[in-house]
Amino acid sequence: MRMMSMTTSDGVSEQDFTVGDIPGVLWFPAGATGPRPLVLLGHGGGQDKKGPGLAARARRLVTGCGFAAAAIDMPGYADRPKTEQDERFMADLAERRAAGLPVAERILHYSLTLAERAVPEWQAVLDALAEAGAAGPVGYWGVSLGTLIGVPLAATEPRIRAAVFGLAGRTGLAEAAARITIPVEFLLQWDDELVPRASGLALFGALASAEKTLHANPGRHREVPEFELDSSQRFLARHLGPGQGAPIQ
Amino acid sequence: MRMMSMTTSDGVSEQDFTVGDIPGVLWFPAGATGPRPLVLLGHGGGQDKKGPGLAARARRLVTGCGFAAAAIDMPGYADRPKTEQDERFMADLAERRAAGLPVAERILHYSLTLAERAVPEWQAVLDALAEAGAAGPVGYWGVSLGTLIGVPLAATEPRIRAAVFGLAGRTGLAEAAARITIPVEFLLQWDDELVPRASGLALFGALASAEKTLHANPGRHREVPEFELDSSQRFLARHLGPGQGAPIQ
Repeated sequence: MRMMSMTTSDGVSEQDFTVGDIPGVLWFPAGATGPRPLVLLGHGGGQDKKGPGLAARARRLVTGCGFAAAAIDMPGYADRPKTEQDERFMADLAERRAAGLPVAERILHYSLTLAERAVPEWQAVLDALAEAGAAGPVGYWGVSLGTLIGVPLAATEPRIRAAVFGLAGRTGLAEAAARITIPVEFLLQWDDELVPRASGLALFGALASAEKTLHANPGRHREVPEFELDSSQRFLARHLGPGQGAPIQ
Repeated sequence: MRMMSMTTSDGVSEQDFTVGDIPGVLWFPAGATGPRPLVLLGHGGGQDKKGPGLAARARRLVTGCGFAAAAIDMPGYADRPKTEQDERFMADLAERRAAGLPVAERILHYSLTLAERAVPEWQAVLDALAEAGAAGPVGYWGVSLGTLIGVPLAATEPRIRAAVFGLAGRTGLAEAAARITIPVEFLLQWDDELVPRASGLALFGALASAEKTLHANPGRHREVPEFELDSSQRFLARHLGPGQGAPIQ
């Protein structure tokens, strides 16, 4: 793990790092040391590890809960090298868009294949953060692409104790969902133009968790109401906070 | 409105009253006067205005939010006189149960007819509480039977500004639901043995509210998790609390 530049503002330190060739960022309370609850933030499609929504969420987890948060760029995203497969996908996408053809299914299929590359990357980053003494109890927050990757990740990685998922359907995720038993809060947009309602409900239904809670609201894919972000934060605080694992130093 | 006995414990006053022949109870902060946010609590089937779950909820609204809460016995319930229809329903129910026949549909049909009697009663009680100076902004909390009555009530009564509904399906309620535009939090039990999942989802879908949020959890009809009661309370506090209507004195 290589530490890069660090900045601090409004009580939040933001530490850029790399693990191998994976670029990441860790947010934590300024001046804090030792392990504390850590939330892995999975970015959405077309975004990256420092997208404005994601960075704001990270800062709120730090200032509101005293937690740490971490994000990485997904394979092929931001400045990361693109494979032949990535290049082919983007060329195909550009062509289909120019021809006015539907692209949702292509994006879904490509995103699902990304999980095969992203899951071991997240695990390597989690190893490195644990070794650096930064990780107490671990949670995951990621919707849309963040769920396409987060569901296989949480099915594989036992250190993740609670997760916020949503804005994704059952296609390609049923088998992994059936292996998830941790508490989950699941966001569904009732009028999602990208995810059929029945498929979103079926993904929620497929999770094997004894504690799982579906929050559905009217509106399109990107119109999750602000109060759901408060709710996600309370959910993660409830499951990762003091008394729910290793003490916070 | 006739005031009956009043008791006070742990900072909560509990005032029994009648409006005409409707028996009710008002909970409010001990020693408080003047209007404050008021939550009407609709009891469930087979319960009454002082059922333990309902009374606990009322006390939490008083101690947690400084609100008042009111409940009435539904027509034909508790000590209230039974009509010929009530008697016929109960005899039929006992017979069917003895014969091992299904009763869910009969209960639903009967409960829906109760709304015709209960809605004007709730309105008379609200008039009386407003006249007594007890009602600021008004909300409603009621699931199961409380929703079968609450949906027609909220569709008719403009003083209700926010409502918690749930554990009920679309049958008999679609038309009233389509007239509801206030914020709603809707509880659904994923494995509800009394309400088909699709019917519960359809009732949520039928509400015309721009702000409505569905909270679905695993479990049967009576297994709503404790954290949803916290959530209902936050929802009502958000919509009825200071800054959302008349000031609290």
